[in-house]
Amino acid sequence: MEPLVSFLTITAMPPSLGDNTADLDRLRRAVAEHLGGIEPRVAWSRVAPVAAAFRAAGFAGTAVVNHLTAGIELVDFLPGKAAGPVVMALDLGTTHLEATLLDLGSGAQLAREHQENSQICFGADILSRIHHAATPGGLTALHGAVLADINELARRLAGAAGIASAAIRALSVAGNTAMIHFLLHLDPHHLIREPYIPMVNVVEPPAAVELGLAIHPAAPVWVLPSVGSYFGGDLVAGVLACGMVQEEAVTMLIDVGTNAEVIVGNRDWLMACAGAAGPALEGGVARMGMRADPGAIDHVEYDPGAATFQYTTIGGEKPRGLCGSGVIDLAAALYLGRIIDLKGKFRPAAAGTRLVDSPDGPAFVVASAGEAADGRPVLFAQVDLDAVMRSKAAMYAILATLVNQVGVKFADLAKIYVAGAFGRHINPRQAITLGMLPDLPLATYQPVGNSSLAGAELVLRDGEARRVARELVRKITYLELNVNQEFMLRFSGSRFIPHTDHRLFPSVPFFKDS
Amino acid sequence: MEPLVSFLTITAMPPSLGDNTADLDRLRRAVAEHLGGIEPRVAWSRVAPVAAAFRAAGFAGTAVVNHLTAGIELVDFLPGKAAGPVVMALDLGTTHLEATLLDLGSGAQLAREHQENSQICFGADILSRIHHAATPGGLTALHGAVLADINELARRLAGAAGIASAAIRALSVAGNTAMIHFLLHLDPHHLIREPYIPMVNVVEPPAAVELGLAIHPAAPVWVLPSVGSYFGGDLVAGVLACGMVQEEAVTMLIDVGTNAEVIVGNRDWLMACAGAAGPALEGGVARMGMRADPGAIDHVEYDPGAATFQYTTIGGEKPRGLCGSGVIDLAAALYLGRIIDLKGKFRPAAAGTRLVDSPDGPAFVVASAGEAADGRPVLFAQVDLDAVMRSKAAMYAILATLVNQVGVKFADLAKIYVAGAFGRHINPRQAITLGMLPDLPLATYQPVGNSSLAGAELVLRDGEARRVARELVRKITYLELNVNQEFMLRFSGSRFIPHTDHRLFPSVPFFKDS
Repeated sequence: MEPLVSFLTITAMPPSLGDNTADLDRLRRAVAEHLGGIEPRVAWSRVAPVAAAFRAAGFAGTAVVNHLTAGIELVDFLPGKAAGPVVMALDLGTTHLEATLLDLGSGAQLAREHQENSQICFGADILSRIHHAATPGGLTALHGAVLADINELARRLAGAAGIASAAIRALSVAGNTAMIHFLLHLDPHHLIREPYIPMVNVVEPPAAVELGLAIHPAAPVWVLPSVGSYFGGDLVAGVLACGMVQEEAVTMLIDVGTNAEVIVGNRDWLMACAGAAGPALEGGVARMGMRADPGAIDHVEYDPGAATFQYTTIGGEKPRGLCGSGVIDLAAALYLGRIIDLKGKFRPAAAGTRLVDSPDGPAFVVASAGEAADGRPVLFAQVDLDAVMRSKAAMYAILATLVNQVGVKFADLAKIYVAGAFGRHINPRQAITLGMLPDLPLATYQPVGNSSLAGAELVLRDGEARRVARELVRKITYLELNVNQEFMLRFSGSRFIPHTDHRLFPSVPFFKDS
Repeated sequence: MEPLVSFLTITAMPPSLGDNTADLDRLRRAVAEHLGGIEPRVAWSRVAPVAAAFRAAGFAGTAVVNHLTAGIELVDFLPGKAAGPVVMALDLGTTHLEATLLDLGSGAQLAREHQENSQICFGADILSRIHHAATPGGLTALHGAVLADINELARRLAGAAGIASAAIRALSVAGNTAMIHFLLHLDPHHLIREPYIPMVNVVEPPAAVELGLAIHPAAPVWVLPSVGSYFGGDLVAGVLACGMVQEEAVTMLIDVGTNAEVIVGNRDWLMACAGAAGPALEGGVARMGMRADPGAIDHVEYDPGAATFQYTTIGGEKPRGLCGSGVIDLAAALYLGRIIDLKGKFRPAAAGTRLVDSPDGPAFVVASAGEAADGRPVLFAQVDLDAVMRSKAAMYAILATLVNQVGVKFADLAKIYVAGAFGRHINPRQAITLGMLPDLPLATYQPVGNSSLAGAELVLRDGEARRVARELVRKITYLELNVNQEFMLRFSGSRFIPHTDHRLFPSVPFFKDS
């Protein structure tokens, strides 16, 4: 468990005529005794501050060393015995940043903060930001926005923990390939142009001061490596965090964001692919869709006895809209209640008065105007349902194509890790009913939370995780779905509930007459 | 012969859907094929320029790599096949800087330039500059002066070679420990205070851009390591250049600058010391002393038959003063002509009319007013002679103490390398006559020119030299003379011509009656 930064307690003999070793060489020698004889490197910019601090402390105190792939770096010296080191892990998302502050000494999490990605003013999605990067000053503005967000998070994390931002000794960052290009001020132009080439996948950690981050100047910024334009360090972090690279059994990781990104494999091999299955499942397509915030309908159930629909909202507040899990639950409940048919179309006769005309066309009243938070009914329109059908079809087709490519069956998967808000809120039972996820025992599905952030934390704590992360880049085979004929066929077959071939979903009621 | 910088000819396959490796990772992979599979590191600041240059060049051209102790760094990419790399070696002297421009591809020296150290405005000697460094802004001013001098030399070298300064791909620097502290903006305070401790002896090469040097921003600045406050990288360079660390035979290197610095040893061991023997020998003490410039009397001989003195001047010009070798020759000639006694005092009866009264007391007329360049006679006063006697005594005492400490005899020395202007101009015969250098066959003495600069060139050309330089620092034992009782005794015994024990100098006439 070699942390990215460690504190070493040093007591050196003061210099004398009999031992006139230079200050910094003396410290290096003392540090080497802790490191099995390996002398740490010291960058020129750290020579003066470290040597001066060592002398000022009376040649005894705490040495700060970074454990990098290229070797061990001595970066600071503190008087006395210091607590920590305190470090920061960051999930650098397209819409949202989430970060934690850890004490690598005690292992404790000291604080957790999140905020919107302020790049949104340059474009809500990655594509428009990449276009913005090509305008004069565009890349610098995008880069500046990332730095400002990180500095703000660092300030708030440090404030919450009662320390100075400058006491943050390392930062790890998990982000998609484009976000990492923005962070590192690298031109993202070719990321979105065939054959989709990043400038770099594996970078040496710059020091915070080089990037312009307001944490400790010598803090290494350890960026999770990416595999390609469409497989970033956020997913590498997820793979690390769920532990699938350590397992002999074949498992799968599903991360639904803007895209659905899926990895299957074990400690010997890994294959990954991604596809546009996400927006509807994140509440991003439905007209009444919303993030999983208070007031979002997150669960819907159909009671066959009473032939009624029950819902719950996040925070128990009056409903304001539907989040991703609510959308999936609702679609499944509508199917089970036979309000929609197996093509995902409303059956007006069955829906009765709950089907109304809306500006978006026919829509199902999930919550009436009287129940809703703002006096407007929560509606779910046919167009929303159509989007869900496309998304669920894409998701199942992605999963089926991927496992088929690697020659395993769904039943061979020991676990399916489901990351992010999608994993946290979704009910696999309803997703199976829809035919979005394969019909496996529910215990197969395991939510893993923000696995990008968890992976970012892991590389701060563990040198083996950093080594594996760099290896993963060579180990992961990426399956390009855009040009994949099998995927297109499977997508077509998945546009029914639960599937054209209903025998694939034995646990789902099949209504022959729908 | 691994040079510090090398150019590698690269032809990579362009990216495709079948091989979507990131640009920089693709280049690293191609470079690794030249390096036995070792992938070079790329600092964050070089990622964007190198990746962009590689793509712009059509994935083929010349990769620029630095071979550093910490590993191989990829720093640039040039289209097509480039000549070079061109690099700069610098002897960073207290009074004088001397530099060469080398083409590591062809091995040719492209240019050579020198200039005064512009720090002289802050103090002529190192001690006063170290005191100046302690004043507000003092260190920064001294640092800035070094940078300005190096930039000016780089500009002139590049101009002479018809290239841009930015095409200089590396710089090596040999300088004394204080000058290196000024170059690296390190506080020199403790260099001159017991127990005389440098901030650092061995530094990682900073990139030129970090230091603020106007050569290629990624050029490594390879600083010859120092052994201690009084044994700098200039001497380490000298030891490398004369080759004594490769030899089985025991040899000695003498470098006379402000101090006389002496190293004795072979490939297995090295011992060094330094003492204040220099100024008189560099023309720095004699009233008529001058640098070895045109018009300096550089050689004086006594013709016993005619009982006359003959001199030559540098450039054959009319005499203006005496340089170091002239002073030594003159003192020896005065002894052989019996104008001075074995204590180094004028014998007025023997000197006759050539001994005159001067503002500095009794003085010997070396060149009359009529012969001299500016109508003023070139005089050599008793006080000058006293200084020469102290210097020569110190020099012999240093050499004798050092060889005795390591348990060898002068006769065991296979070679005595004599560096610098002192080595180039001095006549060992006359130095032996004075009792300054031991009475050995003249062929033992070998001038080695500017061995600091030669050593600086060597580390640019040869990785083994760089490795040896870093090892030397641990290998050299430094003998502190300030606290050495034996040195003081030997110094007293050396204050006669040639020595109290004249049997040590069988080749020197001994005048019993002096």
